[in-house]
Order: sequence, then structure tokens, then C-alpha cells
Amino acid sequence: MIRFECDYLEGAHPAIIEKLSATNFEQTPGYGTDYHCKNAAELIKKECGKDDINVHFLVGGTQTNTIMLAAILRPYQAVLCAETGHIATHESGAIEATGHKVIGLPCGKEGKLKAEQIAQAYDFHMSLGNREHCPMPKAVYISHPTENGTTYTKDELAAISKVCRERKIPLYLDGARLGYAMMAPGSTITMADLAEYCDAFFIGGTKLGTLFGEALVITNEELNTDFRYHIKQRGAMFAKGRLLGLQFEAMFEDGLYYRGAKHAIDLAMKIKKAFEDKGIPFYQESFTNQQFPILSNDVIAKLKEKYAFETWEIVDADHTAMRFCTSWATKEENVEELVKDIAAL
Amino acid sequence: MIRFECDYLEGAHPAIIEKLSATNFEQTPGYGTDYHCKNAAELIKKECGKDDINVHFLVGGTQTNTIMLAAILRPYQAVLCAETGHIATHESGAIEATGHKVIGLPCGKEGKLKAEQIAQAYDFHMSLGNREHCPMPKAVYISHPTENGTTYTKDELAAISKVCRERKIPLYLDGARLGYAMMAPGSTITMADLAEYCDAFFIGGTKLGTLFGEALVITNEELNTDFRYHIKQRGAMFAKGRLLGLQFEAMFEDGLYYRGAKHAIDLAMKIKKAFEDKGIPFYQESFTNQQFPILSNDVIAKLKEKYAFETWEIVDADHTAMRFCTSWATKEENVEELVKDIAAL
Amino acid sequence: MIRFECDYLEGAHPAIIEKLSATNFEQTPGYGTDYHCKNAAELIKKECGKDDINVHFLVGGTQTNTIMLAAILRPYQAVLCAETGHIATHESGAIEATGHKVIGLPCGKEGKLKAEQIAQAYDFHMSLGNREHCPMPKAVYISHPTENGTTYTKDELAAISKVCRERKIPLYLDGARLGYAMMAPGSTITMADLAEYCDAFFIGGTKLGTLFGEALVITNEELNTDFRYHIKQRGAMFAKGRLLGLQFEAMFEDGLYYRGAKHAIDLAMKIKKAFEDKGIPFYQESFTNQQFPILSNDVIAKLKEKYAFETWEIVDADHTAMRFCTSWATKEENVEELVKDIAAL
Amino acid sequence: MIRFECDYLEGAHPAIIEKLSATNFEQTPGYGTDYHCKNAAELIKKECGKDDINVHFLVGGTQTNTIMLAAILRPYQAVLCAETGHIATHESGAIEATGHKVIGLPCGKEGKLKAEQIAQAYDFHMSLGNREHCPMPKAVYISHPTENGTTYTKDELAAISKVCRERKIPLYLDGARLGYAMMAPGSTITMADLAEYCDAFFIGGTKLGTLFGEALVITNEELNTDFRYHIKQRGAMFAKGRLLGLQFEAMFEDGLYYRGAKHAIDLAMKIKKAFEDKGIPFYQESFTNQQFPILSNDVIAKLKEKYAFETWEIVDADHTAMRFCTSWATKEENVEELVKDIAAL
Repeated sequence: MIRFECDYLEGAHPAIIEKLSATNFEQTPGYGTDYHCKNAAELIKKECGKDDINVHFLVGGTQTNTIMLAAILRPYQAVLCAETGHIATHESGAIEATGHKVIGLPCGKEGKLKAEQIAQAYDFHMSLGNREHCPMPKAVYISHPTENGTTYTKDELAAISKVCRERKIPLYLDGARLGYAMMAPGSTITMADLAEYCDAFFIGGTKLGTLFGEALVITNEELNTDFRYHIKQRGAMFAKGRLLGLQFEAMFEDGLYYRGAKHAIDLAMKIKKAFEDKGIPFYQESFTNQQFPILSNDVIAKLKEKYAFETWEIVDADHTAMRFCTSWATKEENVEELVKDIAAL
Repeated sequence: MIRFECDYLEGAHPAIIEKLSATNFEQTPGYGTDYHCKNAAELIKKECGKDDINVHFLVGGTQTNTIMLAAILRPYQAVLCAETGHIATHESGAIEATGHKVIGLPCGKEGKLKAEQIAQAYDFHMSLGNREHCPMPKAVYISHPTENGTTYTKDELAAISKVCRERKIPLYLDGARLGYAMMAPGSTITMADLAEYCDAFFIGGTKLGTLFGEALVITNEELNTDFRYHIKQRGAMFAKGRLLGLQFEAMFEDGLYYRGAKHAIDLAMKIKKAFEDKGIPFYQESFTNQQFPILSNDVIAKLKEKYAFETWEIVDADHTAMRFCTSWATKEENVEELVKDIAAL
Repeated sequence: MIRFECDYLEGAHPAIIEKLSATNFEQTPGYGTDYHCKNAAELIKKECGKDDINVHFLVGGTQTNTIMLAAILRPYQAVLCAETGHIATHESGAIEATGHKVIGLPCGKEGKLKAEQIAQAYDFHMSLGNREHCPMPKAVYISHPTENGTTYTKDELAAISKVCRERKIPLYLDGARLGYAMMAPGSTITMADLAEYCDAFFIGGTKLGTLFGEALVITNEELNTDFRYHIKQRGAMFAKGRLLGLQFEAMFEDGLYYRGAKHAIDLAMKIKKAFEDKGIPFYQESFTNQQFPILSNDVIAKLKEKYAFETWEIVDADHTAMRFCTSWATKEENVEELVKDIAAL
Repeated sequence: MIRFECDYLEGAHPAIIEKLSATNFEQTPGYGTDYHCKNAAELIKKECGKDDINVHFLVGGTQTNTIMLAAILRPYQAVLCAETGHIATHESGAIEATGHKVIGLPCGKEGKLKAEQIAQAYDFHMSLGNREHCPMPKAVYISHPTENGTTYTKDELAAISKVCRERKIPLYLDGARLGYAMMAPGSTITMADLAEYCDAFFIGGTKLGTLFGEALVITNEELNTDFRYHIKQRGAMFAKGRLLGLQFEAMFEDGLYYRGAKHAIDLAMKIKKAFEDKGIPFYQESFTNQQFPILSNDVIAKLKEKYAFETWEIVDADHTAMRFCTSWATKEENVEELVKDIAAL
């Protein structure tokens, strides 16, 4: 079976395994206070072109989203997001478990939030007579790329940032697949842009070739207050913290993060073209590592004999949108084979 | 100014004030363990035609909803409701503050949940491969009457109850304006029906003529386990509990609850007819004490000179849906005057 | 049976019942925005000798404590209190239910927290290397009078306030029985002192002769931010808010609050003297409305034939500390009878 | 510097690094559903001599404690533990953040809870008249070894289990350093005993030579209900779950877990004897990998020139209890050197 069902099937970049092995008997203090974490943070600050920002290393995405949002929000405040946002759909109520409402706004299949929606939601709330009867929207969550494989343009991000800052609403960006957005054809948002426009964002490691780990960047100093308490209290303080640090060192010492992402995107674009060449439509056009062709159930059955891929959404009685993922670890020959098989459909 | 903006403008039925006064120097144990509470609970059990049910007296509706749902749900479970449901829109994230997601389902202007929607939401969840990535819908909240003034039919309630019981999902009914639903023309759901079909429901006092207080009826014994702990922990254990008890005694000793509701409905139907006679459409037709005519902004301005009523929703540049409420305390002569003024528009 | 078991056996001061009756058909906006609440707040500000403070009316003590502390604390912060403090012992984990640890410090039978304890607890925490592994103590809760009937002196309060302000720890005072502390012989803390030294405190109504209701005074403007959201979210927004307002109007229009408290204290001092005259020791000497004699089990059995009073703590096989409460409503003749019966023991 | 300050200074057993490397390009499904996790669970079941138990793999100890206790407790319930228990002192209020009070019972320096204490605390609570005013103790947390290096005997564990089962209180055991307790001289509790006496316990990996990871064993089927939802909701569902599985495979395939622990204990006993031989007293005698000598501040200063170790508690102006830890990774020659230097003091 050739597998395209997700982007976390394998372990890690060999460079990471080597580093793990090479440093195994180093003795370091725990909880992220070691020099690998410090060094990785420095590398990330350099990527961001900023020195006055804070970097924390956490284990996974849901954990990172939960802790950051719980740190931003006061008890009666809610977070705005696209109704397809990961926190609204696939985190099992983790945000609500910290006491906060997640307000999903309509976003269509594109899965993107618009600056106007944020302004409208906040301004409408603040215009209410008895507004204390409704939760106050006081954080914005966006994903880049989105759960549907789309990306924000720099203008869109700037516009969202502007409406947020005018209203003092912290803007938080989920970058679980950030590298794949940055390497997408036509995408121009840089790490420095994220550090400029967001109050906080995270650089996903798990789906980009670390064994685990997400690097949370907090650019708004106020949100960083006592942040390590939040980490510990939510059970996310990792004892042997240097494991997180050294993985991100490996990622950003010489561009491995981007090379791995570029590899995945190049292969995804081949799959995209193969479907297009057959006139197969997409649930939502994507230039990232996730592709969502709408296939007839016959075709699905045929491809399933050889390939693993995922059901996204039932479209009609005969058609289903499916998801094909590539990753830093996808083998070129497997993609070639899939492309050939698509062409032969 | 003649006021129709809500149904809690005044204090309480004079019978309640008299009872308060007459019992003022009685000495009773606290926290709802007194004989007024016991007696009121007996009266309510009689209304329900059931003896093996539990009655608790709480101060307000949001408090009651929050405590009952927090008692029903385990941490990872969510409550299903109509997207216009009070818990989804006007309780400032109180349910989420106890850790639970509120899942609002589409319901149009009618504001009612359908049995099929519940079945579909639950069954879809349970069919998922990795269902633990999504909160489990494991309670149903409905309002009767709804926030938009509509009511469930007995068949609809029975159908909802059936899908819930087949799936072991507790069904909870918010009766903040219950009396007004029961007295609505064409409405046939009785207190006994509620006790039959719901796992828990509350009989609203505040909007029906008590100073404050809601009677929570729990018919599912399992949900009653240690329930007084939930009450105390959420800050809702009322010290001089007998004040709650004696108000519900006054309400159900000789039908005052229904008489007060009937009075409000009769007057609301006069207002309804007055608008209809002028060909004025409604946002949503209602047979309860809330009426939602869509008025031109000119008419609104004119009526506002003499009457207080509330904005419900902007319909277009020239028209707005407004809310007129009657209550147990509304004066007939004020309604007559409004009817005359509508006729003269 | 003559009852001394608690101070909330009866309803309310007749003046309150009269006011309720007289205002019953007034029409007022809901949720505490009416003129009775505004007027009561003004009266309380006058008592405090300050105009730039905020007053909110809530239903009960546990509710008030929970909401105020949840508003003060960030998720990883804890509240310091005497280990006998009400929030530590008798609120069923209400504070913890909002996510915060209650740290009870040793206080002996006196039930009072000392300035040095607060300084020590906070300074020790801040001196820790990995302090994020422990919750940060960042609020102080004291009761006046305490649960054991003792009171703070003005010097003690000033000292506590000083260590708190030096460390930016908000100081919150639970005044569920505040009037009884203020009228205690030798007690000199005034309402103005509380407004001066505390960041927030509440003036207990329920135990001082209202039907229900506590007046929360927030003197630290920052803690008042969006406070009405906290109230609503915790299910504590009272619909017919004017009922709270008018009760506190009755209390502070002409000193009824203090007169009722003085009445209780005068009678409590008679009971105190009666026990002293018989050489009966106290669990803890109290000059407030709660008296804690240590009685032999024989004497307890004898007195129980005629009087109701409460077990406080078992002292040894033959002796138990008991609690006798007086209140605004206690009848002088009942105290005279008890005094005579004690003398005859 | 020779380091004895904690037992998580290094990475992992080389066998684990090799396994990581060897399996790096395996493709497995995520979230702990892979065959490494299945296999590791089987190995642990075999250790426990039971097949009808459940094993979940989590990342860290605080996370595991929090999730298990949040799954056990209903909102108004509290957990009993020794006042020195990790959840009471060093988890930054993580349990409280899920809404539950942690009730620390006195335990002296031994750090152990006694069966009688549990019985007394629970029975006293249930004997209260208004018991809903206090949180209900409904889980027991013990650590083995304790935070102070002591261990339970099999009789003590059996007695605790008995009082818990008689009262239907789930018993949960924190085994962050479990291997070190099992290899302690005189300790007889086996994995099978734990599975017999506890409702749940975890086998610590992090401090015993995994990179990270704790194996949570739930023997009480009821507590396992929907447990994966709890994991996901608290942000603890690890994407590349096989990393957890394969580490525990390495640990239990051929006894590596015990060999590593034995190594640490043998070295700790040498350190213990060295201090004893010099007549140096201990804060608390320990037969596990943590040793707590009370040293004069002069001696501390001298040893600190060459060794890293941790301050435990200030004993008097001149003496401090210090902690020396050994681990699976401690080098024998380093211990020999320390022993020599102690002898030369």
C-alpha cells in the first residue's frame, strides 16, 4: 500500500535522529531551560528578523492552541475563527474545556476568515445594549494553511491584523503545516511577516518532519507574561526539553524546514496536475501539500486497491471529496506511480 | 410610557407578596430543606402526575441551565441545541465556562430543533473513525416556548424524546416562559407530558410572576445523583430557601401559574390580531406572549413616542422586526390603547 | 423550641417587606440597571466616603466569593486564605471549579490570617527557581468577622493591606456578617477603612436582615473591568435587579443595617456573659454574634430540650464546642430565658 | 561537574535510540493506534498478569495525573492525597484547573498516606448533615515511591485498596519513578500487585530512561469509558503515537525497565552507605534512587565545587536537607568518586 492519507506517517528527518543520537548522553537541565532550546529560539528569532520576541517549545498542536488561547482570554471572552477551523472542529472541545466559547464564522470551502467578518463580529458585540449577556469576542484564530489547504495572501493577513489591532484583539495563527503554506506557489508570507502581523503563531514541527514539537512564537510581550506557568499547569511542560530544542535546531540551522516542505509541495503539485489533466474537479483548489479531488466512487474503489487516502466529504450519491497528502517524507517514485495511475483512469 | 419590552418589569403576584409578608417571621432551616420547599415540590409532582421525580428550586434561568447541563455532561461531552437557543446566544458562555461545547444546529426563524437533526448529529459523530477528535454530543437542550415565541407540538416533543432515549442522550427543556407555552392557543403539552418525555426541565417563575425562582424537575433519577452538591458548588444554594418554596406554593396551590399565563396570552393575541388586521407581517408567527411584527421605521418611531418595546432584528433598510411582550402583569387597558393606535396607523 | 442555630432563620426586616410591597408594580429595567440599584450604590459609596468605587449586587456569599476571585485571578494563580476560611471549607470547591487553587494557611482557632504569612508565602514562591511548577499566590481572602467569630483590628487590616499592595496582590474581604463585626465591642474598622484597605469586599445582607443579597464593593478600578460579564457568565445576573437595590436602600437609608447588627451583638454579649459567669470556657472568644462555649455533653443534652444550637467541634469525649447565634431578628425575651437557664445549670 | 540533581538529565537508553532509528521510515497510523502501541500494551498486560486491563501512553506525569483524575471525578468531587503529593505541590494547580480540589492530608516526612486517613476523611464527610457544602472526597492519589523517596509495603497498599473499595473510591497510583520503587531493597510490590490493588496507575518512563512517555494502566473498566476523548481534549493525543509504543516495547521486551532501575538503586545504596558511614543523618530514610542527607552548609559548599545536587529543605541555620539522585544513566565511576569524597569529609 502506498500511503497518502496524512503527513505524519513517518518518524523524523534523519538529521534529527542523528542529532538525538549524538546528544543522547549530554546532561542538561530540564523543562526547556537548556542550551538547545536557547539556540533553537535564537534561530527562530533570526528567521523572524526580530529579537524582542519569545519562543516556547510545546509537544503538539491542540496543546499549543489550547494554552495560547487560554493565556490570551479572560473567563468571559471567546475566540473567533473560521467555522472549519481546527479548534472549532477537531480538538474535542479543548478550548471550551478551559472555559471559552469558540465562535465559528461562515467561511465556505475556502476555510478563510475575512478582516470584515472580524470587524463586524466585534463591533456588533460592542454595540449591544446588554452586551454582557453574550461572550465578548477577544481573540482571533486563523490557520495558515487552512484545514482546506488554502493560504492567506500577505494583504489578507495585513488586513486581518489591522482590524484586530484597531480593536485590541490578539491575533493568533496556527501554523501546524506552516512550511507547506510558505512553500506553496504564489505564497509570499514570510516568517518575518508572521512576526509582524500576529500577536502569536506557531511553527508546526510534527507535520514537517520533527518527531513531535511545535515552536510557539509570542510577539506581543504582554501575552508572554508568566507564560511558563500556563505551560506547566496544562500538563505541557516537557521534562527533557532539549529534545524539542534540538529538533528545531536541526530544522532551522540550514533551512531543512523549508527544503522538506518544498519537497512535499513539488510532489503535491504533480498530483494536482494529474487530476486536472483528467478534468477531475477539486472540492477546493489547494497549492499546499493537501489535495482534495472529487472522485467518483468507482475511481475511489479502484485507487484504494493500491493507495491509502482519506475521505473528506460526501459530495453526492456517486462522488466524494478525498484528501491526498504529501509530506517531507513522501517518495518521488510513489507520486510518479500515482500520477501514472491517474492518467490511466 | 406604556411598557411592552419584556416580561419581568414588575415584582410578583400580590399573592406572593402577601405570603412573604405573612411568613416573614417563621423560623425555618436553610438551603431548601424547609417545609415550604417540600410542599411546593409536592404540588409540582402532583402537576406532573408523578411521585418519583425530584424538584430543586433555583434562582434564575442561566444558573439553572448551567448547573443542570454541567451535571449531565462528562468533560468531553457537548450539548446540542437550536442555534438560537438561549444557552447558545444569551448566557455569555456560561455553559462553556463549565467546560462544555454548545453545538448550535440550524433552526431558521422557527427556533426549534428537530428529532432528525439530533439523530443525524449523534449518529454522524458515532460513525467517525477517530471520533475522539470531536466533542461527543450527549445532551439535548430545547426551549418551550422557544426564544422566537414558537412552541413544540406534543408529537414533536415525543419524537425528540424517542431519538434521545434510543441513544441514551438526556433531554433537557428550558421552560423559562413555560406557562406562556402551555396557555398558547393550540398548545397541548402538559406538565405531565414534560415529566414523561424529558429527563429534566424547569418551570420558569421569574417571567411568570414570582420575584425570582425556577423550579427544576429531574425525572431521570441518575441525573439527580448528588445534585445538591452541584447547586452549592456553582454558588446557587439559596440560604433562605423557603422564599423559593413559598413562591411556588403560591403558584401551584390553586392554578395561579396558569391564570397569570392565560392573562398574558389573551392580551398577546389581541396585539397579534391588531397587527394582522393592518396587514403587518411577522418575523415569526407566535401564539405566546411575545409578538414579533416587522414594522417600518416610521411606524416604529411613531409608536415609540408612547410605548416601550424592543428591537429584535433589522430586516432591511426600512424595516425592523420588533418584540412586544405581555405578561401576567400587563394591564388590559394598556393593550386596548395599543390596539387602537395600531388600528389608526 | 427557641432557636439560636444560625442567623438566617427568618425573612427580612419589616421595612424591607414593606418596600417590596410598596414598589411591587413599579416597572423597571432588569439586571441591576434600575434606579433602586443606583440609589443603593450611592448610599454605600457615601458610607465608604468614596465616589470612585463600584458596587454590584449579588444574591449570595459563595456566589460573590467565586465571581470576585475568578475575576481577580489568571488561570495559574491561587488565592491565599486562613485554613478555616469559608472558601477553603464550606463552598464545596466552588473556587476550584473556576480553576483556582485555594491555599489555606495555618491560623489556629482565631481564624485570622497575618500579614507576615502572606508576605512569607508570596516571597517564598517568587524566590523559587522553577516557580512555574507551583501555583502563584496572587489574591488574599480574609473574612471579617471570621468564621470563628473573631475580628481584625484596624492595625492588622492595615498591615495586611500594606504587604498586599507592596506585592500587587489584590486583597478581598468577605463580609457575610460584616455588620456584626462593625458593631462588636472594641471593633473600630469602618466601611471607609474597608474601602481604603481592600481592593474589594462585600457587605453581607442575607445574615443581616435582607431576604437575600450581598453588596460587592470594588475599589480597585482594574478589577472592575467588564465585571458584569463575570456576573452573567456565572449565572448570577438577577433579572429583577431592583429587588437587590431596594433591600440595600432600606438597609442604608437611615442606619437599619447597623441597628439590626447592634441588636444582635447586645444579645450575644448577654449570652457570652452568662457562660462566663458560670466559668464555662470558650472554643474561641468572640465579640460578635456567634458564641462558641465548650459545654459538657450533659449540659448540651439538657439545653437541647428547649433550645436549638449547633455543634461546632468535638473537644474531648465529654465536651463539645457549640455555636449559639443571635441575629437582627433574635427576640430579647428568648435570650433572657437562655441566660436564666445557663445561670441555673 | 558531576551531576546528581535529578533523574532526567540524559536522553534515553541506547536501545530506545536504536529502535527510533530503525523504525524511522515505517509508516504507521497516528494517535496510538499503531502496532508498536498495541505490542507495548500487550507486554505491559503480561507484566501485570492481566488481560482485561487498558493501557494508554501519554507524554508526561502532570499530564497523566491531570487527565486520569479529571476522568475519575465528577465536578463537585475532590482527590485525597498526602500533603507532599506531587499533585498538591508541584503541578501548578493542574488538577484545580480541571475544577477539582486537591485535599492534602498530613503525612510527615514519610510522605505516605494511610488507609485510616482515607477512611476517616471520607466517613467524616459522609457523616455531615449538610455535606453538599464541602467537596466530596472521591479519588485517592498516592505516589510510589513517594516524593520523599519512601515506598509503600504490600500490606499498606492492600489496606488502602480495601478502604477505597469498601467506599467505592477509585485508587490511583503515580508511578513516575515506579521502577525505582520496585527495585528498592525490601520492596515487594509487583506490577501484578498494582494491577490488583489500584483502579489505575502509571508506569513512569521519562525518569526511567525513555525520552518521554508514561504508560497509564486502567484496571477499572468503568474509568476507561471514552478515555481517548479525555486524552484528546486535554491536548495529550500524541500524533506519532508509535514513538511512545516503541519506547515501552524496548523497556519491557526483555526487562530493560527493571535493569535500568536496579542500576540506579545499587548506586544510590552506595551513596546512602557513604553518608551513613560518616554518621550523617537523613531528612527521611530512602531505599530508592533519591537520597536526602542533612548536610552542614560548609559541607554543601565543599561538595558543590564538584557535584551538582539539589536543595530539598532548610533544616536550621547551619544545615540543609539536600537531594542526590541516581538514575539508569548514572556512571558508576562518578558514584565511586562521590563516595570517596564523602568518606574524606
